[in-house]
Amino acid sequence: GCAKVDLQRESRVGYPEVIYCSGKTAEQVKAILEAMLERDSNILATRVSLELFEEIREICPDALYSPLARVVAIKRKKVEVPSSYIAVVTAGTSDLPVAEEAALTAELFGNRVERIVDVGVAGVHRLFANLEAIRGARVVIVVAGMEGALPSLVGGLVDKPVIAVPTSVGYGASFHGLSALLAMLNSCSSGVCVVNIDNGYGAGYIASMINQL
Amino acid sequence: GCAKVDLQRESRVGYPEVIYCSGKTAEQVKAILEAMLERDSNILATRVSLELFEEIREICPDALYSPLARVVAIKRKKVEVPSSYIAVVTAGTSDLPVAEEAALTAELFGNRVERIVDVGVAGVHRLFANLEAIRGARVVIVVAGMEGALPSLVGGLVDKPVIAVPTSVGYGASFHGLSALLAMLNSCSSGVCVVNIDNGYGAGYIASMINQL
Amino acid sequence: GCAKVDLQRESRVGYPEVIYCSGKTAEQVKAILEAMLERDSNILATRVSLELFEEIREICPDALYSPLARVVAIKRKKVEVPSSYIAVVTAGTSDLPVAEEAALTAELFGNRVERIVDVGVAGVHRLFANLEAIRGARVVIVVAGMEGALPSLVGGLVDKPVIAVPTSVGYGASFHGLSALLAMLNSCSSGVCVVNIDNGYGAGYIASMINQL
Amino acid sequence: GCAKVDLQRESRVGYPEVIYCSGKTAEQVKAILEAMLERDSNILATRVSLELFEEIREICPDALYSPLARVVAIKRKKVEVPSSYIAVVTAGTSDLPVAEEAALTAELFGNRVERIVDVGVAGVHRLFANLEAIRGARVVIVVAGMEGALPSLVGGLVDKPVIAVPTSVGYGASFHGLSALLAMLNSCSSGVCVVNIDNGYGAGYIASMINQL
Amino acid sequence: GCAKVDLQRESRVGYPEVIYCSGKTAEQVKAILEAMLERDSNILATRVSLELFEEIREICPDALYSPLARVVAIKRKKVEVPSSYIAVVTAGTSDLPVAEEAALTAELFGNRVERIVDVGVAGVHRLFANLEAIRGARVVIVVAGMEGALPSLVGGLVDKPVIAVPTSVGYGASFHGLSALLAMLNSCSSGVCVVNIDNGYGAGYIASMINQL
Amino acid sequence: GCAKVDLQRESRVGYPEVIYCSGKTAEQVKAILEAMLERDSNILATRVSLELFEEIREICPDALYSPLARVVAIKRKKVEVPSSYIAVVTAGTSDLPVAEEAALTAELFGNRVERIVDVGVAGVHRLFANLEAIRGARVVIVVAGMEGALPSLVGGLVDKPVIAVPTSVGYGASFHGLSALLAMLNSCSSGVCVVNIDNGYGAGYIASMINQL
Amino acid sequence: GCAKVDLQRESRVGYPEVIYCSGKTAEQVKAILEAMLERDSNILATRVSLELFEEIREICPDALYSPLARVVAIKRKKVEVPSSYIAVVTAGTSDLPVAEEAALTAELFGNRVERIVDVGVAGVHRLFANLEAIRGARVVIVVAGMEGALPSLVGGLVDKPVIAVPTSVGYGASFHGLSALLAMLNSCSSGVCVVNIDNGYGAGYIASMINQL
Amino acid sequence: GCAKVDLQRESRVGYPEVIYCSGKTAEQVKAILEAMLERDSNILATRVSLELFEEIREICPDALYSPLARVVAIKRKKVEVPSSYIAVVTAGTSDLPVAEEAALTAELFGNRVERIVDVGVAGVHRLFANLEAIRGARVVIVVAGMEGALPSLVGGLVDKPVIAVPTSVGYGASFHGLSALLAMLNSCSSGVCVVNIDNGYGAGYIASMINQL
Ligand SMILES: Nc1ncnc2c1ncn2[C@@H]1O[C@H](COP(=O)(O)O)[C@@H](O)[C@H]1O
Ligand SMILES: Nc1ncnc2c1ncn2[C@@H]1O[C@H](COP(=O)(O)O)[C@@H](O)[C@H]1O
Ligand SMILES: Nc1ncnc2c1ncn2[C@@H]1O[C@H](COP(=O)(O)O)[C@@H](O)[C@H]1O
Ligand SMILES: Nc1ncnc2c1ncn2[C@@H]1O[C@H](COP(=O)(O)O)[C@@H](O)[C@H]1O
Ligand SMILES: [Mg+2]
Ligand SMILES: [Mg+2]
Ligand SMILES: [Mg+2]
Ligand SMILES: [Mg+2]
Ligand SMILES: [Mg+2]
Ligand SMILES: [Mg+2]
Ligand SMILES: [Mg+2]
Ligand SMILES: [Mg+2]
Repeated sequence: GCAKVDLQRESRVGYPEVIYCSGKTAEQVKAILEAMLERDSNILATRVSLELFEEIREICPDALYSPLARVVAIKRKKVEVPSSYIAVVTAGTSDLPVAEEAALTAELFGNRVERIVDVGVAGVHRLFANLEAIRGARVVIVVAGMEGALPSLVGGLVDKPVIAVPTSVGYGASFHGLSALLAMLNSCSSGVCVVNIDNGYGAGYIASMINQL
Repeated sequence: GCAKVDLQRESRVGYPEVIYCSGKTAEQVKAILEAMLERDSNILATRVSLELFEEIREICPDALYSPLARVVAIKRKKVEVPSSYIAVVTAGTSDLPVAEEAALTAELFGNRVERIVDVGVAGVHRLFANLEAIRGARVVIVVAGMEGALPSLVGGLVDKPVIAVPTSVGYGASFHGLSALLAMLNSCSSGVCVVNIDNGYGAGYIASMINQL
Repeated sequence: GCAKVDLQRESRVGYPEVIYCSGKTAEQVKAILEAMLERDSNILATRVSLELFEEIREICPDALYSPLARVVAIKRKKVEVPSSYIAVVTAGTSDLPVAEEAALTAELFGNRVERIVDVGVAGVHRLFANLEAIRGARVVIVVAGMEGALPSLVGGLVDKPVIAVPTSVGYGASFHGLSALLAMLNSCSSGVCVVNIDNGYGAGYIASMINQL
Repeated sequence: GCAKVDLQRESRVGYPEVIYCSGKTAEQVKAILEAMLERDSNILATRVSLELFEEIREICPDALYSPLARVVAIKRKKVEVPSSYIAVVTAGTSDLPVAEEAALTAELFGNRVERIVDVGVAGVHRLFANLEAIRGARVVIVVAGMEGALPSLVGGLVDKPVIAVPTSVGYGASFHGLSALLAMLNSCSSGVCVVNIDNGYGAGYIASMINQL
Repeated sequence: GCAKVDLQRESRVGYPEVIYCSGKTAEQVKAILEAMLERDSNILATRVSLELFEEIREICPDALYSPLARVVAIKRKKVEVPSSYIAVVTAGTSDLPVAEEAALTAELFGNRVERIVDVGVAGVHRLFANLEAIRGARVVIVVAGMEGALPSLVGGLVDKPVIAVPTSVGYGASFHGLSALLAMLNSCSSGVCVVNIDNGYGAGYIASMINQL
Repeated sequence: GCAKVDLQRESRVGYPEVIYCSGKTAEQVKAILEAMLERDSNILATRVSLELFEEIREICPDALYSPLARVVAIKRKKVEVPSSYIAVVTAGTSDLPVAEEAALTAELFGNRVERIVDVGVAGVHRLFANLEAIRGARVVIVVAGMEGALPSLVGGLVDKPVIAVPTSVGYGASFHGLSALLAMLNSCSSGVCVVNIDNGYGAGYIASMINQL
Repeated sequence: GCAKVDLQRESRVGYPEVIYCSGKTAEQVKAILEAMLERDSNILATRVSLELFEEIREICPDALYSPLARVVAIKRKKVEVPSSYIAVVTAGTSDLPVAEEAALTAELFGNRVERIVDVGVAGVHRLFANLEAIRGARVVIVVAGMEGALPSLVGGLVDKPVIAVPTSVGYGASFHGLSALLAMLNSCSSGVCVVNIDNGYGAGYIASMINQL
Repeated sequence: GCAKVDLQRESRVGYPEVIYCSGKTAEQVKAILEAMLERDSNILATRVSLELFEEIREICPDALYSPLARVVAIKRKKVEVPSSYIAVVTAGTSDLPVAEEAALTAELFGNRVERIVDVGVAGVHRLFANLEAIRGARVVIVVAGMEGALPSLVGGLVDKPVIAVPTSVGYGASFHGLSALLAMLNSCSSGVCVVNIDNGYGAGYIASMINQL
């Protein structure tokens, strides 16, 4: 076959393998899915186009799809959900797809998520109006494009780990997210760590790990 | 004065401000130090040359110095230490200064640290021989230069958050740590997040936050 | 004409010229093909779209096509095949097209090929389960995108030359394969050399040279 | 001679030529200075080492030197000073040399300057404590290294033009100021424009122009 | 909702929020627009495709559209216009869309604008023939792609602030505007500051601020 | 109008302005063309799509078009042609469009051109077989993509100026022609100068200047 | 200790571990050396300064040093040497240190080496005068800086694998070897693979592996 | 020996080999020099430190040295000098070393040179004041750092080939000459070609070739 699905991953690292659909044919995705469906774990697929989702639904009618996050979730197993929650903070409206990928990942893996949207640094009073919700979280995901300044600001205001997600939102010298990525890596606030550009999934995953410690 | 020391940071984010000494004159560092010494918190200064340490010791005889990590620690306050520990895993001998900056930061902030050195991917049996110590940690810091492959490997073997620290160890196409940084950002293992090149301090800080949740 | 087909290449370097079809018109490709078909050597064309293959088939009905590898092979001459083999190791499912370009190139040039797929570092037990097949080869091709860590791992486990092929699989800070390329160039394992991003053909070619020494 | 001093610049663009000393020999600098001293305009020289200043002082005993800003100022002419002022806002202590180059340039060119230091985004209350002084200015210079987030924040809080100056303060992925530069160019706050990395002089110059409109 | 429209921005920084439409769905844009229409400020939307404009016109029939600048303007409030003007200077015909975005922004925000087109450095007599109109302005916007030389030339000829806008016009080593951007940041003329590649809007905004001081 | 056609360029620099059509609308191109047609100089337009050519032909039926070079030539004036010639040397078949843009430019400007195609360094005997034709030229244009090695080789074999044209032919680490560009700039052969990636026009222009000295 | 010397590497991959001395203290190097000296394998240390060598000689008087290659070799074991040889081909005099690192590595690991120096493409007759020696080798190492063209040329003339080593020789747009590296990765000759900039050691190692197959 | 001096180069390409001294030991330089001194051609050595010159003078007392250009010239043969001349135009005082390397190269190779210094675009009247001298040349070398705008301006004013030399003069976003290099490659003036950053020698060489056609 085209893949060796890592079926023992759940026992090894606590979570099942996740299907990254970009660059895979529908046939390949369905083959991997079928191997995973034989076990009763929850399944997450990312970077799923609407067309691909329609093919998936044929073999798996209970699959759920978020067109905003381009994510498919298949819930087959009850997961224990801790009482603490993850805050997903978004700088601007255009960053929502990445933020939603993070939020849905965290929710599927058994976490409560609080979404705080459109609180970028250009109008900082919006952030302060939402500070309580952010400070109440056990771990904070901050999603921002362009100059990527929001994680630094949040990092200086909370005493919890901040997962910064740069997005490719912007143009010109944003160089497809490079600008936000570099800013986040150079954050003068401590307590900030960074995942790949547009990697909402990765942020949701590690935040889930931390929330469930 | 040259600085507004953020004296309320400890109450706001849980840790006191830390002095980043690179690009500051000895006078500036000492002025900042004196403002901080008036309060009885623990103090950390990073990127400290031996000459600078000697100046610091004059105003603060109980300052401790690690020439390997180039870090000064001043312990003035007892900190509660949780029973769980942080593993600091190093790929090669040349990465030790960065790893030690991480370890000392975590220790000063009240954590037990387990050091696992020189277990890079070129001789992977060395990693497996130390897997138990790594898996026992609550959070894992992985320090690597050159191709920066070790965090991916560790990330696939543990069910705890991995903080990846790229180092500038290497030459030619390592481009002063860029190679390791990019590798870590693109990790195919989930559960890995990244801090700046050579930023041992930042890794120790966030690991401490997570260990103390 | 638009090209000076290097018809004496086979006698000079041991292999016939290969047609790189990207950026060439169908007319140009067919003109080159016809010049080569006059001699009875085997012919390889790479980066062939399905449309182009259909045009090629008209003038050459025995042409074979792999839609996965986007390669056309025309076998006109028996080639001696050594008993030793080449291992083609793939990190993930999305890297298969590049791996298959390598494998088919090596096979057309007279080599036995062993394919080992989807054994990336995120689930390293899959690699160990296939180590015997890899160690049995005379030369090993390793194909990986994203952080490009697999060649370092393989290089530390085998005593044979490793040809590393970075792929453009990934997004964000993978920068179209730059991340994997830099990682492979900086491998801390010795015995690893590197070809261009997505250059399965080049890897198959040099592996064939080495296998036939 | 080695230079064609642009002696008519003052009448053409309102300010005399300024001597950029980096990469010039002491002989070249002194030759240029002597040509300028023949006219009674004020003179500014930037990137001046202490050694060079000592040579300058020999031919021009009233020359003033700032070792922090590495700037020489020679005041020969009264300049009219408007009542409005320029705010020079600094993110961190290590950015002070660049900020001071800006402030001294503006002062020599006939402006009142208000300095607000060490108010970076990691402790945002420090900025709010100084907001009145910033909002009172006619034009604001913001100097920051690392992630360069401060201009975005200030830009969202004032209704005056913001001149952003990235500095080379930082390490690793700051890439000698590239990180801060990109962040500032991608500011999501309107009303922010940018000068070269470490170009305090250029910021002081354009702020002076705006303050004197 | 998907956005927290910054409705108090006008009172805080003097201008209403502006809608950046790239990467937003028509639904999102219209939701933001409706929130803003409830107050009687002027509205600007940038990066608007013809399709999007047609959707906007349905809820707002008095919206005006420039297909060249891809800008929508909705005028609901009289703005005071100072007697001084802004010059918008364009290097080549291909830079016109960006220049027009700048000019329309400035006009909507209450400024007189003088357009001087196609006066790039390859035929410098065209610039001199228009120098009077440029020198008469209170602030000058200079828009150029390729080598981005025009702002340096203009900066050496006028005694007013120059806002330089690099464009992505060019090919090959222009790297989508990087060449022009770097040139402008390194201008040997003082009095030049820079905004993002293709950011006509940002240039119009800050020029308006300066013109209305 | 949208353009200030530089009608005096011919008297100033010896050649008429040339229309660069990329990023211009058909209306803009035709307006410029009509201004130029009023004078009886020869006209060259580059980067012309087939659709644009069809619009041009309507207002100018004697316009000639090369679909390979994407160039339109309108010959209205006899030009004196020197007896010496320009050699246009091409590394591979895929470089032909750029080479042809160079050759047609030179021919329209009044030069004899000798084309030598597909003599790249991978089969160097092809170059030696054509050396006489190359050595006979007064100036040599060398067009190559990928590793861009051919100009160095030619530069070491002829005693005439070599104009090197990097092309964007290649993939992966060719980075759209950057690889060839850097190679040519670093040529260890003296007598080589370089124009922009894919700039056949620029190479033809300067070669024409040199041939007509 | 600071290192886990990989003492079983020789049995696993056929060669003992090699000490990369850059970024290690003399104490660390000597500790590693002493662990290795307890077994009777041959030892190689690279990037060794003269000062470090003098410290090494104290604990190991039979250590040999090449100041050109900055390599230390300690021969304790007879190695079988095949009759075939490795050619090490150098483009220019300044590339000699890297070439010598390759040659000495290959010799210590039990290979005959033929050195061919200063045959860069600017004077290609020098290469042809040495072609026989190159063609007689079983594997060819080609070392070049600046435009890195030589491996392509050699690759088109021999029927053996070519290991290309880019060097940091050059200035300006060579970007410390990037130019040569990119050129070699994009070689239009097949049969060329690449190691890191200045990595003579790596080239010697893999060439040895191939020569001993 | 360490070098194969290309003694037949003069007969092949018209000029003797030139010694590039950077990265060569004094011994290597002297060995090459001695081989060349046996023939009675003129000798040029570039990138020569004062120390190296002193060693050269010992074996060659008639060697001349320019500390500004860091060039050694040994004149042993009369060269015919054409009546036409080369203009070497410099943007700023800091660019003089590169300009002088170009001028001295051209003079040694038998050309009259006219130097026009410090006529950068920030004070364009200085250029116009020297236009006659520039227009009188047969070929023009233009040397500029920072934004590298001068070649475009000159290219639009003369009807002769322009050789553009970017210099590493500048700081911050000049990236060691990259900014000037990109600007020159993207020149909107035709008739401009480019050599490597700081490559005065290469510009002088090709200008000499053109002047002697
Ligand atoms: N959007 C995503 N971004 C990064 N990694 C992902 C994403 N979705 C899934 N993954 C990871 O990619 C792995 C699958 O890789 P593959 O073997 O190529 O299918 C999964 O196990 C996840 O760890
Ligand atoms: N996929 C490929 N990647 C890199 N090089 C290739 C590829 N396919 C063919 N080639 C090489 O490119 C040469 C043809 O180049 P050209 O003259 O442009 O047709 C062949 O002789 C091969 O050496
Ligand atoms: N293919 C081309 N590449 C580079 N420059 C060109 C090209 N075609 C025309 N040009 C130049 O671009 C100028 C026109 O620029 P513009 O004013 O934007 O139309 C012409 O006068 C030529 O000097
Ligand atoms: N300053 C310079 N910049 C670039 N190339 C140079 C320079 N000086 C000499 N050269 C060239 O480098 C060659 C010598 O290279 P090498 O064999 O390394 O000594 C000479 O023949 C010249 O073509
Ligand atoms: Mg918003
Ligand atoms: Mg080790
Ligand atoms: Mg997989
Ligand atoms: Mg501070
Ligand atoms: Mg024009
Ligand atoms: Mg070909
Ligand atoms: Mg040489
Ligand atoms: Mg000057």
